[in-house]
Amino acid sequence: MNRQNPCRVACIGSGGVATSLLQALYHAGYSITQVYSRHLKNAAALAHKVEAEAIDNLQHYRDDADVVIVALPDDTIESVLPCFAAGKALIVHTCGSLAMQVFEHQGIAHYGVLYPLQTLSRQRVVDMRDVPIFVEANTPANTIFLQSLAGYISKNVSEMSSEKRLQLHLAAVFACNFTNHLWSIATDILQNNKLSPALLRPLISETLAKATAAKHPQEVQTGPAYRGDKKIMQKHIKLLNNNELQQKIYALLSDSIQRSAINFAKFRFFATFAV
Amino acid sequence: MNRQNPCRVACIGSGGVATSLLQALYHAGYSITQVYSRHLKNAAALAHKVEAEAIDNLQHYRDDADVVIVALPDDTIESVLPCFAAGKALIVHTCGSLAMQVFEHQGIAHYGVLYPLQTLSRQRVVDMRDVPIFVEANTPANTIFLQSLAGYISKNVSEMSSEKRLQLHLAAVFACNFTNHLWSIATDILQNNKLSPALLRPLISETLAKATAAKHPQEVQTGPAYRGDKKIMQKHIKLLNNNELQQKIYALLSDSIQRSAINFAKFRFFATFAV
Repeated sequence: MNRQNPCRVACIGSGGVATSLLQALYHAGYSITQVYSRHLKNAAALAHKVEAEAIDNLQHYRDDADVVIVALPDDTIESVLPCFAAGKALIVHTCGSLAMQVFEHQGIAHYGVLYPLQTLSRQRVVDMRDVPIFVEANTPANTIFLQSLAGYISKNVSEMSSEKRLQLHLAAVFACNFTNHLWSIATDILQNNKLSPALLRPLISETLAKATAAKHPQEVQTGPAYRGDKKIMQKHIKLLNNNELQQKIYALLSDSIQRSAINFAKFRFFATFAV
Repeated sequence: MNRQNPCRVACIGSGGVATSLLQALYHAGYSITQVYSRHLKNAAALAHKVEAEAIDNLQHYRDDADVVIVALPDDTIESVLPCFAAGKALIVHTCGSLAMQVFEHQGIAHYGVLYPLQTLSRQRVVDMRDVPIFVEANTPANTIFLQSLAGYISKNVSEMSSEKRLQLHLAAVFACNFTNHLWSIATDILQNNKLSPALLRPLISETLAKATAAKHPQEVQTGPAYRGDKKIMQKHIKLLNNNELQQKIYALLSDSIQRSAINFAKFRFFATFAV
C-alpha cells in the first residue's frame, strides 16, 4: 500500500492504546515501521493490521522511525528509554500521570507526551475522532509536530502541561475507574439477589444525562444520603453486613455526599447575598 | 376534558415522582381528583397540569379516589397514613426502601407499593414508558389492579417483594447516587485546575458503554488500582492533600478495586478447572 504521509512511526507496546493510535495513524496514511511487544504474538497481531514488522526484542529496533510511541504502563516506561538514547526520533509516552520529566537525562533529544483521554482496549473499536488528545513536548517545534500528528487522529487536540495532565487523570480515575467499580458492586448486589443487572440501565443512563445537563453534578445529587435519611442508610448498611468493605464504602460516600450538600447549600446561601 | 378511564387517582406529594406518575396517568386517561402538598403553590402547579384540586391540608382529602399515591419521602409516609384509615381506596407508596409492612395496623384495607426505578424531577421530562415499575400489594386482586395501572405508565412492570425492592434500591444507590457524587468530585478537581468538565464526557460515555456491553463491569475494570500501580496511586493521593475525605475515598475504592481484581482472577482460575 502506498502511504501518503512521509512520516514513519514505530510503536513500543501492543495494548489498547497502541492498537487504537497505530490503526488511526495507519488509516491517516502514516507508515508504521515496527511494533514491539514482550510477546511476539501480540506484536504480530497489531503489526499485521498496520503492515509493520513485529519484534519482541528492543535490540531489533531499527532507529528509522520519525516518531516512537511508547504505549506501555507508566511504571515500565523508564526502563525502555535507554534504547532510544542518541537516536533522532521524537519519543513520546501516552500516560496520564507520568510527567514529561521522565525523558530528562536519558540522552534523548526530542521527546513529548501524547495522551488520549479514553479507555481503549484491543478488542473494542472507538471512534478516535471524538477522543480528546493532550500533547506536550520539549520544544515548540516538537509541540507543533505532535499537534499535527494528533490532528490526524482526533478533532479534539490541545496542549497540556504535565501538572494539569496529572490532575485530569486523577479526575478521570474518580469519574471512570471508581464509577465502574461502583457499577460492579451494584451488579454483585443484584446478582446475589437473582435480579437482572439490566434493571438499573435506564436509571444509570438518566443519572448520567442529568449530570451532564447540569452545570455541576452536585446540583442533581439525590438519594438517602443527600436527603439525610438516616433510617434508610442504616437499613442499607445492615443489608451489607456480610461485606465490611462495601459497608465502609457506603458509609464514607454517604458522609461525603452529606458534607457536600451542606457546603453546596452554604455556597448558594452566600451567593444569594453576594449579588 | 372527557376522561376515558373511570378510575380516579389522588396524590399526596408534588415532587418529581408525583409529577411524573400523575402526568403519565392523566395522559393515559385517568381522572386525577386531588393533589396535596404542604405548600399550596406546589400542589397547585401540578394540579393545574392534571385538572385536579390542589390542597395543603389533608383534612380536605375527599375520599372519592380509587387509588391514592403517597409520593413522599420515606420517613414522612407513616405520619400521613391515619388520614386514609377506614377509606375504600387502594393506598400505595412509591419508595424503594420502605417495606409494605408500613401499612399494617393502620386500619387500611387495600394497600401496596408502586416503585418507579428512576431519578425523577419536577422539571425534567423522562419517557415513563421505559422506566421499570415494581408493584406489590396486600391481596392478589390489588396486585393485578396495580399491575394494570402501572401498565398504562410503563411497558416494563413487574411484581417485586419488599425484601428484593430494598436490595434493588441499595444497588441503585451505589450505581447512581454514589456515581453522581464521584462525577461531582471529578468536576471539582477539574474546575479547581481551570479545566473544563466537558473534557471527561467521551470517557464517561465509553466507560458506561463498555460496562453495559460486558457480562459484568468487573470484566472491563481498568485504572491504576486495577493494575496495582502504587506509584500513580501515591501521586494521586498526594495531589488530594487539601481534602482528607477525598483521600480516604480514593484509598478505600482503590483497595476495593484491588481486592475485587484478585477475587475475580481467582474465580476465573477455578472456573477453568471446574468445567
